[in-house]
Amino acid sequence: MEKTTDTIPLTMNSSEEQGTVCIFGTGDFGRSLGLKMLHCGYSVVFGSRNPQKSSLLPKGAEVLSYSEAAQKSDIIFLTIHREHYDFLTELTGVLNGKILVDVSNNLKINQYPESNAEYLAQLLPGAHVVKAFNTISAWALQSGALDASRQVFVCGNNNKAKQRVMDIVRTLGLTPLDQGSLKAASEIENYPLQLFPMWKFPFYLSAVLCVFFFFYCVVREVIYPYVYENKDNTFRMAISIPNRVFPIAALTLLALVYLPGVIAAILQLYRGTKYRRFPDWLDHWMLCRKQLGLVALGFAFLHVLYTLVIPIRYYVRWRLGNQTTTQAISKKENPFSTSSAWLSDSYVSLGILGFFLFVLLGITSLPSVSNAVNWREFRFVQSKLGYLTLIFCTAHTLIYGGKKFLSPSILRWCLPSAYVIALIIPCTVLVLKFILILPCVNKTLTRIRQGWERHSKVSNWH
Amino acid sequence: MEKTTDTIPLTMNSSEEQGTVCIFGTGDFGRSLGLKMLHCGYSVVFGSRNPQKSSLLPKGAEVLSYSEAAQKSDIIFLTIHREHYDFLTELTGVLNGKILVDVSNNLKINQYPESNAEYLAQLLPGAHVVKAFNTISAWALQSGALDASRQVFVCGNNNKAKQRVMDIVRTLGLTPLDQGSLKAASEIENYPLQLFPMWKFPFYLSAVLCVFFFFYCVVREVIYPYVYENKDNTFRMAISIPNRVFPIAALTLLALVYLPGVIAAILQLYRGTKYRRFPDWLDHWMLCRKQLGLVALGFAFLHVLYTLVIPIRYYVRWRLGNQTTTQAISKKENPFSTSSAWLSDSYVSLGILGFFLFVLLGITSLPSVSNAVNWREFRFVQSKLGYLTLIFCTAHTLIYGGKKFLSPSILRWCLPSAYVIALIIPCTVLVLKFILILPCVNKTLTRIRQGWERHSKVSNWH
Amino acid sequence: MEKTTDTIPLTMNSSEEQGTVCIFGTGDFGRSLGLKMLHCGYSVVFGSRNPQKSSLLPKGAEVLSYSEAAQKSDIIFLTIHREHYDFLTELTGVLNGKILVDVSNNLKINQYPESNAEYLAQLLPGAHVVKAFNTISAWALQSGALDASRQVFVCGNNNKAKQRVMDIVRTLGLTPLDQGSLKAASEIENYPLQLFPMWKFPFYLSAVLCVFFFFYCVVREVIYPYVYENKDNTFRMAISIPNRVFPIAALTLLALVYLPGVIAAILQLYRGTKYRRFPDWLDHWMLCRKQLGLVALGFAFLHVLYTLVIPIRYYVRWRLGNQTTTQAISKKENPFSTSSAWLSDSYVSLGILGFFLFVLLGITSLPSVSNAVNWREFRFVQSKLGYLTLIFCTAHTLIYGGKKFLSPSILRWCLPSAYVIALIIPCTVLVLKFILILPCVNKTLTRIRQGWERHSKVSNWH
Repeated sequence: MEKTTDTIPLTMNSSEEQGTVCIFGTGDFGRSLGLKMLHCGYSVVFGSRNPQKSSLLPKGAEVLSYSEAAQKSDIIFLTIHREHYDFLTELTGVLNGKILVDVSNNLKINQYPESNAEYLAQLLPGAHVVKAFNTISAWALQSGALDASRQVFVCGNNNKAKQRVMDIVRTLGLTPLDQGSLKAASEIENYPLQLFPMWKFPFYLSAVLCVFFFFYCVVREVIYPYVYENKDNTFRMAISIPNRVFPIAALTLLALVYLPGVIAAILQLYRGTKYRRFPDWLDHWMLCRKQLGLVALGFAFLHVLYTLVIPIRYYVRWRLGNQTTTQAISKKENPFSTSSAWLSDSYVSLGILGFFLFVLLGITSLPSVSNAVNWREFRFVQSKLGYLTLIFCTAHTLIYGGKKFLSPSILRWCLPSAYVIALIIPCTVLVLKFILILPCVNKTLTRIRQGWERHSKVSNWH
Repeated sequence: MEKTTDTIPLTMNSSEEQGTVCIFGTGDFGRSLGLKMLHCGYSVVFGSRNPQKSSLLPKGAEVLSYSEAAQKSDIIFLTIHREHYDFLTELTGVLNGKILVDVSNNLKINQYPESNAEYLAQLLPGAHVVKAFNTISAWALQSGALDASRQVFVCGNNNKAKQRVMDIVRTLGLTPLDQGSLKAASEIENYPLQLFPMWKFPFYLSAVLCVFFFFYCVVREVIYPYVYENKDNTFRMAISIPNRVFPIAALTLLALVYLPGVIAAILQLYRGTKYRRFPDWLDHWMLCRKQLGLVALGFAFLHVLYTLVIPIRYYVRWRLGNQTTTQAISKKENPFSTSSAWLSDSYVSLGILGFFLFVLLGITSLPSVSNAVNWREFRFVQSKLGYLTLIFCTAHTLIYGGKKFLSPSILRWCLPSAYVIALIIPCTVLVLKFILILPCVNKTLTRIRQGWERHSKVSNWH
Repeated sequence: MEKTTDTIPLTMNSSEEQGTVCIFGTGDFGRSLGLKMLHCGYSVVFGSRNPQKSSLLPKGAEVLSYSEAAQKSDIIFLTIHREHYDFLTELTGVLNGKILVDVSNNLKINQYPESNAEYLAQLLPGAHVVKAFNTISAWALQSGALDASRQVFVCGNNNKAKQRVMDIVRTLGLTPLDQGSLKAASEIENYPLQLFPMWKFPFYLSAVLCVFFFFYCVVREVIYPYVYENKDNTFRMAISIPNRVFPIAALTLLALVYLPGVIAAILQLYRGTKYRRFPDWLDHWMLCRKQLGLVALGFAFLHVLYTLVIPIRYYVRWRLGNQTTTQAISKKENPFSTSSAWLSDSYVSLGILGFFLFVLLGITSLPSVSNAVNWREFRFVQSKLGYLTLIFCTAHTLIYGGKKFLSPSILRWCLPSAYVIALIIPCTVLVLKFILILPCVNKTLTRIRQGWERHSKVSNWH
């Protein structure tokens, strides 16, 4: 409920009783959580090592020793570090049968063999441990600026305890997401530490592509003319060269979205079964296809913008102006070549259509959209439309090349123009895909994917 | 939980006990489901006609006869075709009180009078039938590539049984969606068979529009000049003509989004009541307005791109170059016409603003956005902003026309320019809407929509 | 389940028994609700003051006196106005232990001291009051055109009663959202009355900005030349001037997104604590940063479009044409200035990159996207990428200015060009931010944000 939650800090200062909750630990998160709960009508008891010393606690909150505090409520939030959990064993008696909410996070992913929550559950077998709230920051709790995520992942082995916690989550205006048994805790604890894990590979890959092609073009279009014609083309590094690099990156990455699928198909044909796990690199590659595609879309978007600004560039206006002037001075009409018109128009047109389909693909990969389509529709969009996009974009580049071939563009230091290199992977993918959809090949593949096996004896599961 | 689920296949190979589940059928889906469950810590027992023969079963899974397997667990997944359900009647004794999860799908929509799940419930009144998992594909279960949809629609008459299944769904890292009683099963079974049902009408309609106007323009701009001036204009088919067809399609479709609302209002005024169902064609039309609008937005987007590339087209540069040359040769300054400047700038400006509002409309129709706005806000955006968009786009076309009228553009073979035809529907809609918001008319309409009736005797419900 | 719900009105005319529900009140909403429930297989009993008189009720629905109707079902929907609730006290006997669903809405936000549902609960302590359905309109219920929102917010103090209502919500094909205890009712009742509350401030602010800068530019570029050179530049109001106003608005608003964060940091440094609430204006400002940013993005988008159409404007073509002609007549080649090429290309390039990052920010602020990222990722995007965007856009404007300085653009009536004014706020924000991330300053700030206090005695909570 977007709006409601946004306005919570302003409207939720109700004082109605919601029952008593206990919070162990008086650190920052403990205090923020306590304040929030007071706002939402709970009465809060803090448990502390030395209750006297604890300052800064929210007004209206009580502070007692751990054991006293624990007796005040059947639900206890632990806002203390895993390192200090062991002291809890002294409280085993008091904590038996209570709900312990583990809100802790670690400093790095998979820091400990088992998750903090599971470790806690081992320490206190008598208590019902529930993992929750670790994905919410103290700052977010206080300010109510919860744009990032209102989702609180909850997991635990005792369903009643889990329900109890999820009700509190809702009362705080957050959205609980049941993640099943306590086994999910390690994932929930890793979640807030991740920084776009699926994006790393696409990001580095595209960075490498860009850097390589940038320098490749610099050599051909800046250094070469400087050496031979002593011309200062450095200004090309601002727009002309990026506008070669980005489309190349976009096309290559788009092709790399469909390459793993093709490789997987070939593997399955070769192995004659689908019941063998793919090598991990292929698995991981397939899992970040979406991200690869979106990065490619980003480059395509940049390419479009860089292309559309061409006519307002000083350099272009200057060149066109001089051309026309010389033409005027030489007093001759410039003849019209239908073929050039066809080439220029058709490669532009193909580019536009390719980009349009590309944007469509991007939109359907938005979580809320892809959740609204069923599996059949998703496959249709991502594979049929996807390949159509690839075909359009490759054709766009080919015809662009074709156009260039007409104009004298020879090798420079035996380096071909960059777009020629860019065409290698896409064409390979398209050729392989074409072979795979040949009836004969396709029939076998379909049967394999429906579970058929070439040598039905062997069964390679793991 | 986007990321988590993506990485499940890599991280969830836990061996913890989750209890035993039974799977009837050792087909592809049964095996994939079994494997996934083993990964998530369940112990799996397969039920098979001839346990000896069943190969390829996941390591660690037991395979027994149906009745033996059934006794091992209180929950049984049926991964067999509806045609073979009848053999289950022999097991009535064993299956009594058990939870039967029907994962079956059909080959075509509404293949049978009642849904498979309901049919199963009739066969085994003693068992608790739950419909689930039919929207997930075996491939998705294995690879964990669940971008399409993590949603598992669940329905059943027994709430406990439903809860049980939903817990399993969550443990597999999927999102259960409670769809209510078993009555929803038929819909859930039809869901994965649908291919954009609401998009069919908009798609075909726009296809027809495009084809018609494409040939219309070809006749006027390619064939006509060829016949009379023997000029080869074929290259216009790549950009110039699409750039006439797309805006026309966009404007017409946008108008068709608002036409049904106007018709409905007129119907209600005429009938003097809102309590009579609209004819089905109108109902269906109103239900796919969103899709019509999005298709229109697509065409508008293409129109924008095709327009922005104009200055980088060979043809345009050639023409402008020659114009300037001739001007230079004739040594005369080209006088500046403020009126042309006004016309060109204002129709471009209107087009941009129209497109901008159009994009806004598109964004608010994204599921996650439209879920975050309340009814009042949605009505405001879709009707107020929507009509503003229509007004801008129509004005854009009118002024563009006005601009053209100044330049000599006569009928060709008595065919007016395409955009003239394109203006008919939008103008009609705007005029009708204008009449409907006249205070006198609007007052009656509002009263009718608040439940008032002209002849309060009659009540036509159905 | 997008599709299913869309098609519900066509497919759900099932007659299966779902049990009996009672509806008090035969107004428009009551009738629509009743009809919908009949379609979904419930049998409906209406309670009315004078059952004889009630016309227009859906076929198949029974109508009785309030007390008779109440006895027929354990769940009663109240579709009557709060003003008439008091008559219910007469029915206390019958209503004891029943589930009362309050669907009422008010005419203005916070019309009454307590929410209608809470008021009802006070009237009938014996009944289980549940708030629901007030966000759904009668029209939506009938037509099934539920694009706006399928979400039904439900709250109540009795969990069983709440569950019961949520099941009904699901059976009607809607999505129940548990909002916790009845305390949430007042918010749920306010929700449908809101009209983009968080957008009001950004909207008015940007309106003021646009109007001011529009007239500012009109004075400099239309009135000034008219007065001194008697030139008619009015046509500039269509594109040229908006294309100055929009980028200024975009840049200023973008800067205003990051200003409150800077102010907050300074406040915290000055106070030496984070445990003091910010002044309300700052709180509110921070809560609508997202909206400010999106409005800014809108202006940036318009700026891009207005810039890209420049070369197809009549005025521009006319000017360029004449330039070239004069150049041709004077028969002299126009020398190439590398510095101009650098300036023009680099400011365009910076603008494109800035816009690209800006679009990225916009996409990540889509609810479904921001829900899929964790807190760390969200902070990374919104603060790191956000500042990068601000830097690019400011640099874009600075270099654009630099370019202009070369061309003779003097003060007109002592008014500097608008973009100079536009640069004030962004530069201030960037300078302040730069100071704040200086190690010395940053260290203190971080400690404060981790809960440290300069004068640990005082504790100012509220």
